[in-house]
Amino acid sequence: MKIAIAQLNPVIGDLAGNAQRILDAAQAAAAAGARLMLTPELSLCGYPPRDLLLRPDFIAAMRTHLDRVAAHMPPTLAVLVGFAEPHPEASDRGGKPLFNSMALIDGGQVQRIFHKQLLPTYDVFDEDRYFEPGRAVNHFHLDTGTGQRLHIGVTICEDLWNDEEFWGKRTYPDNPVARLKEVGVDLVVNLSASPYTAQKQATRERMLGHIADRFAMPILYANQVGANDDLIFDGSSIVLNRQGQVVARGQAFQPDQFCVTYDDTRADVEPGPITPAIADLNAELWSALVLGVRDYARKCGFTQAVIGLSGGIDSALVAAIAVAALGADHVLGVLMPSPYSSDHSVTDAQQLAHALGIRHEIIPIGTLMAGYDETLHPLFAGTEFGVAEENIQSRIRGNLLMAIANKFGYLLLSTGNKSEMAVGYCTLYGDMNGGLAVIGDVPKTRVYALCQWLNATRQAELAGTQSTAPHAPIPATTAPTPIPPAILTKPPSAELKPGQVDQDSLPSYDILDDILERLVQRHESVTEIIAAGHDLQVVNQVMRLMARAEFKRRQAPPVLKVTDRAFGMGWRMPIASCWEFTQPAEPVAPRSQPSIA
Amino acid sequence: MKIAIAQLNPVIGDLAGNAQRILDAAQAAAAAGARLMLTPELSLCGYPPRDLLLRPDFIAAMRTHLDRVAAHMPPTLAVLVGFAEPHPEASDRGGKPLFNSMALIDGGQVQRIFHKQLLPTYDVFDEDRYFEPGRAVNHFHLDTGTGQRLHIGVTICEDLWNDEEFWGKRTYPDNPVARLKEVGVDLVVNLSASPYTAQKQATRERMLGHIADRFAMPILYANQVGANDDLIFDGSSIVLNRQGQVVARGQAFQPDQFCVTYDDTRADVEPGPITPAIADLNAELWSALVLGVRDYARKCGFTQAVIGLSGGIDSALVAAIAVAALGADHVLGVLMPSPYSSDHSVTDAQQLAHALGIRHEIIPIGTLMAGYDETLHPLFAGTEFGVAEENIQSRIRGNLLMAIANKFGYLLLSTGNKSEMAVGYCTLYGDMNGGLAVIGDVPKTRVYALCQWLNATRQAELAGTQSTAPHAPIPATTAPTPIPPAILTKPPSAELKPGQVDQDSLPSYDILDDILERLVQRHESVTEIIAAGHDLQVVNQVMRLMARAEFKRRQAPPVLKVTDRAFGMGWRMPIASCWEFTQPAEPVAPRSQPSIA
Repeated sequence: MKIAIAQLNPVIGDLAGNAQRILDAAQAAAAAGARLMLTPELSLCGYPPRDLLLRPDFIAAMRTHLDRVAAHMPPTLAVLVGFAEPHPEASDRGGKPLFNSMALIDGGQVQRIFHKQLLPTYDVFDEDRYFEPGRAVNHFHLDTGTGQRLHIGVTICEDLWNDEEFWGKRTYPDNPVARLKEVGVDLVVNLSASPYTAQKQATRERMLGHIADRFAMPILYANQVGANDDLIFDGSSIVLNRQGQVVARGQAFQPDQFCVTYDDTRADVEPGPITPAIADLNAELWSALVLGVRDYARKCGFTQAVIGLSGGIDSALVAAIAVAALGADHVLGVLMPSPYSSDHSVTDAQQLAHALGIRHEIIPIGTLMAGYDETLHPLFAGTEFGVAEENIQSRIRGNLLMAIANKFGYLLLSTGNKSEMAVGYCTLYGDMNGGLAVIGDVPKTRVYALCQWLNATRQAELAGTQSTAPHAPIPATTAPTPIPPAILTKPPSAELKPGQVDQDSLPSYDILDDILERLVQRHESVTEIIAAGHDLQVVNQVMRLMARAEFKRRQAPPVLKVTDRAFGMGWRMPIASCWEFTQPAEPVAPRSQPSIA
Repeated sequence: MKIAIAQLNPVIGDLAGNAQRILDAAQAAAAAGARLMLTPELSLCGYPPRDLLLRPDFIAAMRTHLDRVAAHMPPTLAVLVGFAEPHPEASDRGGKPLFNSMALIDGGQVQRIFHKQLLPTYDVFDEDRYFEPGRAVNHFHLDTGTGQRLHIGVTICEDLWNDEEFWGKRTYPDNPVARLKEVGVDLVVNLSASPYTAQKQATRERMLGHIADRFAMPILYANQVGANDDLIFDGSSIVLNRQGQVVARGQAFQPDQFCVTYDDTRADVEPGPITPAIADLNAELWSALVLGVRDYARKCGFTQAVIGLSGGIDSALVAAIAVAALGADHVLGVLMPSPYSSDHSVTDAQQLAHALGIRHEIIPIGTLMAGYDETLHPLFAGTEFGVAEENIQSRIRGNLLMAIANKFGYLLLSTGNKSEMAVGYCTLYGDMNGGLAVIGDVPKTRVYALCQWLNATRQAELAGTQSTAPHAPIPATTAPTPIPPAILTKPPSAELKPGQVDQDSLPSYDILDDILERLVQRHESVTEIIAAGHDLQVVNQVMRLMARAEFKRRQAPPVLKVTDRAFGMGWRMPIASCWEFTQPAEPVAPRSQPSIA
């Protein structure tokens, strides 16, 4: 029996469009002779629908569309379609108002409905906000059309992420796959919307391999693809046989559809089409960011992007990503030199624009700087040049970029990296401006690594050797490398005052990024970070800078998430608070002596 | 037996400071002869601590501080202190890593620990993100010191918000108070951090009255006070007797502490001090917003605020709030007229500054507008004046205000109202700039009502008659009214082009605000809104504007929440999506014909 996996890229909330995507996929699957087709979690509304789920009209429309999809399905094909539906007993018995559901459509009708059991509520996930967990064992028998009946276990995304053997701990009390084994299913399907983070696919494959092998059951994992705001879904749907080997794999970072065959004599899946996994972390990140920009632009209705080009490495990388996402003809670079800009920053940016083949404009900001000086003179006379004046420059640029974006309907991409967003080395309403923070989850050291990888990949392509990139990242240009070498080698500088470099204010980026990873990703204490070899004063400084920059992060554009912990929907820190754990946590001394001794 | 309620205003994460607040309150309670003192939910870390809870060092430090508080407690006083602690079985058995706990301290030690059972996970609440629900019945016996033992039931905030009789439905399967009745407690205490929304105290008093009467048990409700980012906690702690009558009430919107006596012969609480409830919605909102600004400034370390004064009603109200929060000497108004500004906008703003007794500066922006025109001429030549040029003006003002804020260390308050944030009638990086959106949850029609109330209250004060305000809102000035009447009567205008008024682009505010309340608060469908008498085209226009403005709201400052549904932490909508339900929801037509007929 053939089973198709439809790795779809839905638009959040676009029920009619997503229904059509499912129907188109179903037609292709039926034509390929499939008996069953899998679609991702919540495939009818896209994941994550967030607070659209609070609208009763949206929930009602979802059911209408589901029934319409069912009525138009090819008669020979059964399909699993994800949707949200009311929890009818919520009001009488208590509980959340909805289920995260999966409908089995067969014979033109909804035959069965399954409910997701394990509801992630951490990081970017808010499923307890909307959904009641299902408690039934989700399985069904499917007539294969050849006189057999296949016994299929249904899991929805997180339902498979609680294997206590693999993780060495439990996240939820229950393990749905163990219960499916008890009822004797032949195979398990997993309908997912699992967002990309760095090297997550390797983890998924190890984990699913462990589960398939442990329970001696094939697993068919269908993942959503495409980016929705800050979340990038990488697809990479896979099929594992009962030994836990990956026997089929879909494309990463693009829609895909493929079939595998279940052989009931062997009680196992046969090998199917297998796209090679992306081996290189930089290639993976690159593809993720390109998809993130492309889908944000497309799903918001933009075809053109504008980027401020400083001559530095961050804007260079973002411009290269934008070109790969939208095409060189659809990217405008704007150079906005000030009297503090070095000569090379203009020539470097021009070289970059030339290398990428994008249009660029030069708009000097000296006149506007003088205008602000003059305008503010009555208030500022007698004060020293300082952060206020530095920020004015950045905000002039931000204003000019937004003016161009507004005038021509372009999407402004902001270029700040994760390191500077962490410590607040960025100007709110200035260089933070934009609809999307493309590399806001990429630390500075990784920005360098990505650019070096990009250049090496490009050179390998020009030399005709094998590229490690999954798809050609850059349209052909005449330049030897997309990122001019000078941009990679000069010391990073905001150029907001004469001779300024980042390391005047910050520790070196290799030190900073290690401290930040420990603070942000690993939740390490100052004591632990010092124990890893860092200087107490530096760690305290970083902690203090981070805490004080929270108000900036709160107003940042959506940040494309590529790590376990990004500054976005999954980062929920207080602002008016005291979270500078700038001393070792033990012993903690009260601020003043207790009043009662 | 005397029981004290300590209505505290913690700083989020400031464990040492909050511990000291608890100890100071305990000293006063012991001096007043209390045997037991109640503190609010999570009183040691403040509510909501958000992702600080993900830091193991923070959790460990909390326990250290708890033990220190216990060791320094007056020996005659038992105290309930809120804190977060690890769920020790989470990893082995599954479940969330923490409990939302309440420690009973007596005799210098932690004697018992109770766990919150009902964990709100909706709107601004994310408790399932962190906490495992408690499952035990929370009660204890306390030696009264006079030979009796009082049997006390413990509930934490939401634990009391699931009375199916009162609400006509269940939100959670369990009702902890019913279980406390079964074990025969004498009274129930409720330790809360219940955020303010308009008229919520009236609802709380009705609900708690119903529960006390239903189960014939007194209830002592201790609420947090103070604002933390977007959330304002109003205090208003109350004590209800077993008939459900309010017999004691603390101050609204300020710290307070009071005692009531439990009479074990009558098995009821005796009447205690009772602050009158705030009867007027405008007075309530005013006090909430003043506290919101005061605490945000104080807890972030600001003493001075800066506000752009347009001569319009929104900035007038925000300035009046800032004066009440910080004092007239601590507020700077900045007038930034453009060539499109009407004469009266400057004189109105000057009159306002005079009436409020605040310093003001006038900084014309014409030179900078010309500077942007000149700078952008190479790109914009031949295009029409439009939204880009309008936004430039707003962004010049936003940049000037931020320059002043940065230069002098002031807090910039943004002045946009909820109606304009809803439909996007505001400029990102322009008038939306600020650390706090003071009236971002106040619809335009309510802005008018508040200003009218303010003027009437002020006039009543000047006439020596009774004010409806709970505390004098405005320091004495020489002006007859704080908001000059011209500001209340002229048509609203952004003044970004000649002769512009808001109603060129928007429906009248009474219509707009009613549609918005139905869309935002009540989740009504277009069909329902039309059935209420609105025009389909207008409703569709509003829906479309709302959807398109999501990217602006995502980058807005924290919005002081005063309604059930504010644009802030509790508003989680997708951006790159399709949520314009601009047609009646039934029937829903697919975008194109299904491919399979």
